[in-house]
Amino acid sequence: MVSTYTDLDTKAVNTIRTLAVDTTCKSKSGHPGAPMGMAPAAHVLFSRIMNFNPQKPRWINRDRFVLSNGHACVLQYALCHLLGYNLTIDDLKNFRQLGSKTPGHPENHNPDLCIEVCTGPLGQGITNAVGLAIAQAHTAATYNKPGYDLINNRTFCFLGDGCLQEGVSSEASSLAGHLKLGNLVAVWDNNKITIDGSTDVSFDEDVEKRYEAYGWQVLRVADGDSDYASIEQALLDAVACKDKPTLINMKTTIGYGSMKQGTHSVHGSPLSAEDAAHVKREFGFNPEQSFYVAPEVYDLYKKHVARGVEAQQKFDELFAKYKTEYPELAAQFERVVEKKLPEGWEKKLPTYKPTDPAIASRKLSEIVLDSIAPVLPELVGGSADLTGSNLTRWKGAVDFQPKESNLGDYSGRYIRYGVREHAMGGIMNGMAAYGTVIPFGGTFLNFVSYAAGAVRLAALGQFRTIYVATHDSIGLGEDGPTHQPIETYAHFRAMPNINCWRPADGNETSAAYHSAISLAQTPSILALTRQNLPQLNGSSIEKALKGGYVLVENKDANVTLIGTGSEVSLCVEAAKVLEAEHGLKARIVSMPCCEIFDEQAQEYRLSVLPDGIPIMSVEVYSTVGWKRYAHEAFGIDSFGDSAPYQQLYAKYEMTPEGVAVRAKMTVDAWKPVQNIRSPIHHAF
Amino acid sequence: MVSTYTDLDTKAVNTIRTLAVDTTCKSKSGHPGAPMGMAPAAHVLFSRIMNFNPQKPRWINRDRFVLSNGHACVLQYALCHLLGYNLTIDDLKNFRQLGSKTPGHPENHNPDLCIEVCTGPLGQGITNAVGLAIAQAHTAATYNKPGYDLINNRTFCFLGDGCLQEGVSSEASSLAGHLKLGNLVAVWDNNKITIDGSTDVSFDEDVEKRYEAYGWQVLRVADGDSDYASIEQALLDAVACKDKPTLINMKTTIGYGSMKQGTHSVHGSPLSAEDAAHVKREFGFNPEQSFYVAPEVYDLYKKHVARGVEAQQKFDELFAKYKTEYPELAAQFERVVEKKLPEGWEKKLPTYKPTDPAIASRKLSEIVLDSIAPVLPELVGGSADLTGSNLTRWKGAVDFQPKESNLGDYSGRYIRYGVREHAMGGIMNGMAAYGTVIPFGGTFLNFVSYAAGAVRLAALGQFRTIYVATHDSIGLGEDGPTHQPIETYAHFRAMPNINCWRPADGNETSAAYHSAISLAQTPSILALTRQNLPQLNGSSIEKALKGGYVLVENKDANVTLIGTGSEVSLCVEAAKVLEAEHGLKARIVSMPCCEIFDEQAQEYRLSVLPDGIPIMSVEVYSTVGWKRYAHEAFGIDSFGDSAPYQQLYAKYEMTPEGVAVRAKMTVDAWKPVQNIRSPIHHAF
Repeated sequence: MVSTYTDLDTKAVNTIRTLAVDTTCKSKSGHPGAPMGMAPAAHVLFSRIMNFNPQKPRWINRDRFVLSNGHACVLQYALCHLLGYNLTIDDLKNFRQLGSKTPGHPENHNPDLCIEVCTGPLGQGITNAVGLAIAQAHTAATYNKPGYDLINNRTFCFLGDGCLQEGVSSEASSLAGHLKLGNLVAVWDNNKITIDGSTDVSFDEDVEKRYEAYGWQVLRVADGDSDYASIEQALLDAVACKDKPTLINMKTTIGYGSMKQGTHSVHGSPLSAEDAAHVKREFGFNPEQSFYVAPEVYDLYKKHVARGVEAQQKFDELFAKYKTEYPELAAQFERVVEKKLPEGWEKKLPTYKPTDPAIASRKLSEIVLDSIAPVLPELVGGSADLTGSNLTRWKGAVDFQPKESNLGDYSGRYIRYGVREHAMGGIMNGMAAYGTVIPFGGTFLNFVSYAAGAVRLAALGQFRTIYVATHDSIGLGEDGPTHQPIETYAHFRAMPNINCWRPADGNETSAAYHSAISLAQTPSILALTRQNLPQLNGSSIEKALKGGYVLVENKDANVTLIGTGSEVSLCVEAAKVLEAEHGLKARIVSMPCCEIFDEQAQEYRLSVLPDGIPIMSVEVYSTVGWKRYAHEAFGIDSFGDSAPYQQLYAKYEMTPEGVAVRAKMTVDAWKPVQNIRSPIHHAF
Repeated sequence: MVSTYTDLDTKAVNTIRTLAVDTTCKSKSGHPGAPMGMAPAAHVLFSRIMNFNPQKPRWINRDRFVLSNGHACVLQYALCHLLGYNLTIDDLKNFRQLGSKTPGHPENHNPDLCIEVCTGPLGQGITNAVGLAIAQAHTAATYNKPGYDLINNRTFCFLGDGCLQEGVSSEASSLAGHLKLGNLVAVWDNNKITIDGSTDVSFDEDVEKRYEAYGWQVLRVADGDSDYASIEQALLDAVACKDKPTLINMKTTIGYGSMKQGTHSVHGSPLSAEDAAHVKREFGFNPEQSFYVAPEVYDLYKKHVARGVEAQQKFDELFAKYKTEYPELAAQFERVVEKKLPEGWEKKLPTYKPTDPAIASRKLSEIVLDSIAPVLPELVGGSADLTGSNLTRWKGAVDFQPKESNLGDYSGRYIRYGVREHAMGGIMNGMAAYGTVIPFGGTFLNFVSYAAGAVRLAALGQFRTIYVATHDSIGLGEDGPTHQPIETYAHFRAMPNINCWRPADGNETSAAYHSAISLAQTPSILALTRQNLPQLNGSSIEKALKGGYVLVENKDANVTLIGTGSEVSLCVEAAKVLEAEHGLKARIVSMPCCEIFDEQAQEYRLSVLPDGIPIMSVEVYSTVGWKRYAHEAFGIDSFGDSAPYQQLYAKYEMTPEGVAVRAKMTVDAWKPVQNIRSPIHHAF
């Protein structure tokens, strides 16, 4: 039954609107239009539907809210304030200022607030919401028991026309329909306006029909500006639909109340002072007053928030009982929520001796997954339709699928993302944000670039997501240059807060997983080969966990060779040729992860890459970035070719002879330089 | 009226199928399944519908074909051979071998063939096809005259389930529907199989309904395996529909004829010898014979190809008449097809004196567009819904829109891509591939990364596409870290065959356009500021066209400072502080485009970055990559913040003082090193 609404609700809605106006006027930048248009939907959702406790903002069973049109963030900030989260009027006044709690787009760095993910880059938020809903469904299926409906939260998402145009949202919405995520409700701010003006100029598709085609329930609210009861009814109908996600087509007026309402003029710039006063007069507010919140508005929200507080307290009581009845499951639940790993899990990581056979690192990765998946129930992942190539499916894995499909069930941990790399990335971010799972996803390394927008937000949002990125170089062979990464790792190595692993053998592959799983606030990419790699003499998990280490020491060396991944064993062979053919000696450094090497003490780093002799890097990628570590860089600065991989390695002279001759040229070129300075030194 | 089909057609279809089997068996790698399934559709399309002349493969009015599921390329190669393009049976036998005409995925590097674009990365081909159709519609609207239906070709695209799952295809298809591209026909290879098995595991949306929602005509062929007449009827109906693009749902059997037909086993691996023999027996072919083409099959195609040859000859006749009636337009047409620029166009590029006012480079870009758009009718572009921010719309521009929309018409040159960056990139590739336009597209630099998959194929496919990438750094200010590029240029600088411009002032902005427009086989990104930049003393178009040059020479310099974009004027200010505060002198190098600098003679490069004194780079991006040019790199290796940009520059010490103090530290650190070696030297 729909609640009754009074003038006080309208006052609350208009308070959100005037706060949006005042906040953006004060900051002289920002987006007032969408917050003014979506204030009614936000008011109804947060006051009548959602369960949360601002005093325990990270309560695990809270309803999640994602503002996919993140530029509308003053809406979220105003709500945070009104609902009693730790965000003051002064914080609103500090909107978009250095170090404030209220940056220009929502960031999830402040655990006091109800901001789950970083949004702003369009299409990401709704994709994250799909991930949050997947994680919720999985967590509920894993932990709920008869009489213990422990995990039952919903995920709500606001999104605009821009989000609907982005391909990543199409991918995610298609998958959400397939997965029948009844716990997901998306509210489309259908205001017919984008930055370029009317949506008529580029976006006149039938969105409702498209979402029905995806298998969603589609509802409509004709007057999202003031018909609170219809808004609530739609939200109730959405929540009641358990076997489909719901899209609510909410017709709103951008900048509602402004002299320029309904136009793109109110989208991305503050209102004029005159217009701001106009808005307040329209709403019966004092045009002379800014940042005004009537006491009764605070009271209204306080009253409604009580529902969530009570729900949270009931959850605690229920969980206390659950602990006695299901102590092991309860302990596991508490452990994963606290992001602790099970004692000794890392002992399951396989280790290798040099006499063990050569194995492709994608296969080594599969062996790791087979070994750790049973002891890490929080590990949930799959592939973007490359399961047989990525080797991501561990023995005994069950698909995460709706039960009706007979393909698995929601307690399953293997995700069929489909051919949707970008959505896979954004969904992983949402899953990680939920707080109970460690998500991973497989594709070819080259196609991690399709997901670049989401990878960036994993790094910025500090989400532990893991990309199992196989077919990591020209070593994939015949598929050719469309599939062979060249620039990919220069890109991700330049991205802050993401670890780019390229293991050289079995021990290093285990180290890569060790690191990726242990670091709770950093995403990782694991670049893995299609072709076999020998087990190195001198590698170990412990050494590889330093990011770079001396694989072969030689006190009389004339040159240091750095290799990564498949090129480390190449360097080992090249060193033999260098000595036999050119009478020169080499030290060999394996550098499976530059970012982690960078974090080591300078003394250690200098012991690996010391002064005095020249350093040459060897990697079948673009050389861009290597001069941070090496005086000379041997790589591939063109696109690859289609051919058996051995022929490609030969073509690019990535052979023992090719490396050796360049090592000699390096030694010769640096002969005139006395006291060669290691690139590890930095002036500042 | 539909043609009649005989057993000879079936023999031709089965010849395509057996060639697909033999080609992949010979190469021991590749994808036989889709070619076998799509052979009937391809046969009907190429023999009965499409117009082309294999002897004049680049005829501008040829019907275009794009194989979006590029892994099925043996289909295209077999057709090239059978249709009489310059591709022999030996070329088929060389499939996926080094240097062959038949790489693992289609590449457009061979002008002898009917391969328009590089495909393989899923979703790109259909997006390119939308671009080809846009360019066709625009070219027809620009050049056709009463009695001269000069340009009337169609674009046909085959795509698989994978392409339909990729977000980029959703974006492009939505825009194609909006634009009412009646010249576009997409054929969906609906075989219900992807690499992971049945599409049921992740893709069970209602594709027909989705495409109807986009505004497409949707047709269906129930038996795409053998019902040639229905295939032809659907294609005829598609071609007849002039105000909508068409999707044909073609139900096929993957690997038709194989013992494993209809399963994912035939998707990505050659058939066994036993199965190959089985296929041939099924089709009445000799199982002992490989790469067999019956003479009558060649004859069949020869007969049908005559239609296209005739059409091409009629086009030539028509154009000869057109030349006399519309000599200017004809001359322009010939010029753009030959990719020649109009004489003296570059004189329209504005130049600036140091006394001219400071202007944001996005605004400088707008001034360039205002100036050159009138003299370069082939320049066609727009923005991904950021027109007012990217400043991409020149004075007097008309929208490329369907006439019925009353928003413009097809002769319009301004494209409203919508919030669809990835599709914008892929569409630009298709437009460039068409051969009559120079496409550009605007978005924020940070969101060029959304289009990374398409940018890569612009570089690989050698397409002149131009990204007008504004808001190029923390200098965008309040929008914050979700919008501030850090890693973006490390990524694209590591990508082969793409020029990354970051102009520092008006003259350099003009140079960036000069280069981007002049280089017919290289895409360019122009990173442009939101904030104002002063006009430099010492810049010029000519100097900037060398990629890097000495802005301020100083024979007594202690250090060389390299800046790009907004940091060049910062270096100029820093040099004053360095001298005043630290008693040190600096040379200043402006480096607007590293890639073009790399192409200069070593002697020139050493004159810009000479031996003897240390070099320090200054750029508000990741430092990754700068040690190719500098001994020390000053940058930002973390994500940015939300604040007014001046505060951000101060926070990261990107101030005259901050740069000066680091320059001093650089000088101090390198004091002990004698004969400092410029990073421009390379040992090999």
